[in-house]
Amino acid sequence: MVEDKVMDLAVRRGFIWGPSPNIYNGGVSGFYDWGPLGKLLKNKVESLIRKGFSSMGFWEIEAPTIMPKIVWEASGHYSGFLDPIVKCMKCSSIYRADTLIKELHPNEKINNLDFEGLEKLIIKKKIKCPKCKSDLGPVQTHNLMMKTTIGLDQEAFLRPETATTTYLLFLDYYRFFRTKLPFAVFQIGKAYRNEISPRQSVLRTREFTQAEAQLFILKDQENDYEKFKEIEEEELPLQSHDENSPKKIKLKQALSKKIIKKQAYAYCIYVAYKIAKSLGFEDSKIRLRQHDPKELAHYADDAWDLEIKTERFGWFEIAGIHDRTDYDLKRHSEFSKQDMKVQGQYPNILEIAFGIERPTYCLLETSFREEKVKNEIRSWVYFPVGMAPIDVAIFPLVRKDGLPEIAKKIFKDLEKQFICTYDETGSIGKLYRRMDEVGTILCCTIDHQSLKDETVTLREISTMKQIRVKIPELKETIMKILYGEIIFEKAGKLV
Amino acid sequence: MVEDKVMDLAVRRGFIWGPSPNIYNGGVSGFYDWGPLGKLLKNKVESLIRKGFSSMGFWEIEAPTIMPKIVWEASGHYSGFLDPIVKCMKCSSIYRADTLIKELHPNEKINNLDFEGLEKLIIKKKIKCPKCKSDLGPVQTHNLMMKTTIGLDQEAFLRPETATTTYLLFLDYYRFFRTKLPFAVFQIGKAYRNEISPRQSVLRTREFTQAEAQLFILKDQENDYEKFKEIEEEELPLQSHDENSPKKIKLKQALSKKIIKKQAYAYCIYVAYKIAKSLGFEDSKIRLRQHDPKELAHYADDAWDLEIKTERFGWFEIAGIHDRTDYDLKRHSEFSKQDMKVQGQYPNILEIAFGIERPTYCLLETSFREEKVKNEIRSWVYFPVGMAPIDVAIFPLVRKDGLPEIAKKIFKDLEKQFICTYDETGSIGKLYRRMDEVGTILCCTIDHQSLKDETVTLREISTMKQIRVKIPELKETIMKILYGEIIFEKAGKLV
Repeated sequence: MVEDKVMDLAVRRGFIWGPSPNIYNGGVSGFYDWGPLGKLLKNKVESLIRKGFSSMGFWEIEAPTIMPKIVWEASGHYSGFLDPIVKCMKCSSIYRADTLIKELHPNEKINNLDFEGLEKLIIKKKIKCPKCKSDLGPVQTHNLMMKTTIGLDQEAFLRPETATTTYLLFLDYYRFFRTKLPFAVFQIGKAYRNEISPRQSVLRTREFTQAEAQLFILKDQENDYEKFKEIEEEELPLQSHDENSPKKIKLKQALSKKIIKKQAYAYCIYVAYKIAKSLGFEDSKIRLRQHDPKELAHYADDAWDLEIKTERFGWFEIAGIHDRTDYDLKRHSEFSKQDMKVQGQYPNILEIAFGIERPTYCLLETSFREEKVKNEIRSWVYFPVGMAPIDVAIFPLVRKDGLPEIAKKIFKDLEKQFICTYDETGSIGKLYRRMDEVGTILCCTIDHQSLKDETVTLREISTMKQIRVKIPELKETIMKILYGEIIFEKAGKLV
Repeated sequence: MVEDKVMDLAVRRGFIWGPSPNIYNGGVSGFYDWGPLGKLLKNKVESLIRKGFSSMGFWEIEAPTIMPKIVWEASGHYSGFLDPIVKCMKCSSIYRADTLIKELHPNEKINNLDFEGLEKLIIKKKIKCPKCKSDLGPVQTHNLMMKTTIGLDQEAFLRPETATTTYLLFLDYYRFFRTKLPFAVFQIGKAYRNEISPRQSVLRTREFTQAEAQLFILKDQENDYEKFKEIEEEELPLQSHDENSPKKIKLKQALSKKIIKKQAYAYCIYVAYKIAKSLGFEDSKIRLRQHDPKELAHYADDAWDLEIKTERFGWFEIAGIHDRTDYDLKRHSEFSKQDMKVQGQYPNILEIAFGIERPTYCLLETSFREEKVKNEIRSWVYFPVGMAPIDVAIFPLVRKDGLPEIAKKIFKDLEKQFICTYDETGSIGKLYRRMDEVGTILCCTIDHQSLKDETVTLREISTMKQIRVKIPELKETIMKILYGEIIFEKAGKLV
């Protein structure tokens, strides 16, 4: 299975470690560490999402991750962000009731069951504790928010999403943007969900990073949205709720066919798609899937997921685009007793919600390659342009004859400009394989010829071809190759 | 007072909002929101610190912000990260005992008093509740860590610093770096301290961002540190614990005079200094101040603060450089029962700890300018090169004659490459003043001449001079001015 190999590689080569804190009894499930290479990759994903939103006119803000109880009463999370759990009467193991039923009886339709319905089914199906086979207790509610205390006694919760903390500043934005709607903001930051027995590794964790953007818009502006005109000819892989596969369709047509109802909402779908493309996902691995209208939250007018095709989880959501109507501003107006009506109405919120860890993992998985080279299996990672954690690795061919000294000097010089690594702890073949595994685009080797003519070899990951480059020209050559300004084979003398 | 004007500007113009969540009863003290302009500035500070560490060979990692109790027992925070508090017996107001005494009796020396000593002093000085004048209860301990629960019942705490969560991965780094010491890592992320009545606005908050770096090094490597040789001739403003003002001194001399004891530690001090310089602080506003050896934590071998001269708080710490010896790895070895000895010893940790919010605020304050221009006070912000939140503002001279249409077209084009704002809601003088206040380097105005010859004016903030530039050349001209490749006055025809 590709996915096991990918996770194995991720752990072994410093992308993802955990569960965290691993040295303490193997860690706590749902918490992970990002090692040096994983963090470089995650940062690239984060900064492309940031750049995507910024370049489309969204302004970044930052709000606290902790908010007092009243905020979550207003948002609905305090009373509604609940999981059904059951506890074993004997061994005290805890399970999510719906997950447990799904695992033991995959064909049962439980999506529309309430907590009582789940309990009845557990009794009917005689489901016991998977660990000790004893009876399970009643289905209880478990709030997914993590609780804490501010000062000595103020009840507060870690945010389960960035979005709510962004909405609260609506009146500040309104002044900042000189009372002109629509305007758009976004926030990138941590969110927390106290899942019961989280299992999908880095894709469902208790602490994670979100990048959620909001377009605040008046109701009559939603179908008269200037920016829509710029992108109405764009073709997107849309899968409406009554279809089984995505179809490439122009946004203009999606509107006229009423697959999408509002220009501004279509624009938000486009923003999500454009960002996913900028991360380097191929068109064949992206789809936009509409939620079944029957499953929408009561206040939501429409919802689409942007999904990436993975080996491990099939189509997997990395972003959601939500038409939240005026629900949020109404609720916070009511609970805060601050008038959030402007120009005679509560504006609507259209939302684009990305996770950061999920696309990061998907990138690693979809970039993983395995192929036979000279009777050996070559495992390597072929990242989209600009996404490889390490730009250049520098090796001396042998650890003598003054080669390490030259190699270290080159390393120190390149390090100022590129993400570099220096390695002399293996044969050159082994060093190449190490770099193949982490997707390093270029390997620079200093050999005996370097002593004679001041040249080094550069080896490119996808073709494994090598060229010789003069040391004084090395920096510029590497830059041109990495930025795609020159074809590798033409950047020096092929070896 | 400059500082009141700065905070007023920060709130009014979208740098800092709060306390957060402000719409709910005025917010909770110690929590703030970063508005669009503040967030742009904070991001620039963060990315320069990241770039500083990376370019000096530190590798970034990311660990969770929540850790189970045992981690904090090992680190010492569970039993030692305490504030002394007193509660009014009548009105239940809570105060930090030491702060309260200092405010009422500024001349009392209380630094060396333990909790009992503080209580005796409160009784001796007959200190009452400042609010209701009633008696105060006994001095109690208050742990500054915020508590939460993982799953149903696992006790956990939000980290009060990033550092501990970075140390825990030592064995993973050791493998990642192929068992070669020294190696260096850093982490940027949130930390939380449940201060009792925090007051210094954004400089002492309950939730904040840290950028802490660690050099893991063997004891015999500390005075034989290769990278030191590259920087030993650098002159730094050092103020050792027995002096009253900083002196420019070469690091080589600081070593030979035993002001600094170890080469590797001197290197860490240099890294902090270099990063502060890269943020744009002038030499006259930076000092490195050594802690009094008598006030060091029992395990610490040396500690220096990097301080910035502010109007509001005098010399203010934005980073600390700590020689933590082998305390941390020993403690986590002991508590986790994992052997963290390598090559026969527990490595030492040398640490560089930056905050992000503090240098961001200091930048805003030290860049603030006020001067008389034509009988009016001109308030403006002169950010160091590259630090202004907005690059270019675009205005039509009037809201008619087709000027807004051209201006919007230019805005849309520039927006793809620069951080831009469009404004047409005032006279040109008013629009310039708005941009002066937020430090925008260039203002681009479209006037009637633009209709005739396809040129616009560019106005620069520090000189208030204007040049005319052809629209097709606008992008490149702006780029060259912002990157300092061309002097403003020579970039077009002076008006």
